[in-house]
Amino acid sequence: METLEDMRKSIDNIDNAIVAMFSERFKVTNRVGQYKAKNGLPAKDGDRESIQFKRVNELALQYGLDPEFAESYLEKIIASVVRNHEEIAKRTEPGAQ
Amino acid sequence: METLEDMRKSIDNIDNAIVAMFSERFKVTNRVGQYKAKNGLPAKDGDRESIQFKRVNELALQYGLDPEFAESYLEKIIASVVRNHEEIAKRTEPGAQ
Repeated sequence: METLEDMRKSIDNIDNAIVAMFSERFKVTNRVGQYKAKNGLPAKDGDRESIQFKRVNELALQYGLDPEFAESYLEKIIASVVRNHEEIAKRTEPGAQ
Repeated sequence: METLEDMRKSIDNIDNAIVAMFSERFKVTNRVGQYKAKNGLPAKDGDRESIQFKRVNELALQYGLDPEFAESYLEKIIASVVRNHEEIAKRTEPGAQ
């Protein structure tokens, strides 16, 4: 019989994995921010975002997750990433290596 | 040399993992909701939430993630979980097996 304690331990383990994945994701998006800044590309890319929302919506349906929850996650993380990209762009000279 | 395409592929892979973890997390919290409903426990547990916020804040610092981002994730997912627990409670009779 699974106890409340067992279930909460599983939730904590999953949160560890999610926080670790968030951290990895920001490491990659920081590299994207540097790449964009060096190549004079804009922080925001609407075409890429449309593809991401479609993808995450499909993933949510596939995994039995509320698509609205998945989309609100993506909105929040993209907003944070775009802010980071704008900050990286401010302190990077285009064409710099 | 890592291309923009390579980086975006990594971001997509990480999003797959995150969406899968969200789905697993809601499976466990649904079991918690059923447990609480059967045992007449309230949907919201402030003491447990305080422990979770402290834990996730420490995890964020450990993983080099913005603690504000981690906390806003936890706020959002807990709000969604509490709503689910309230709905489960409405359709469950306490003491039912």
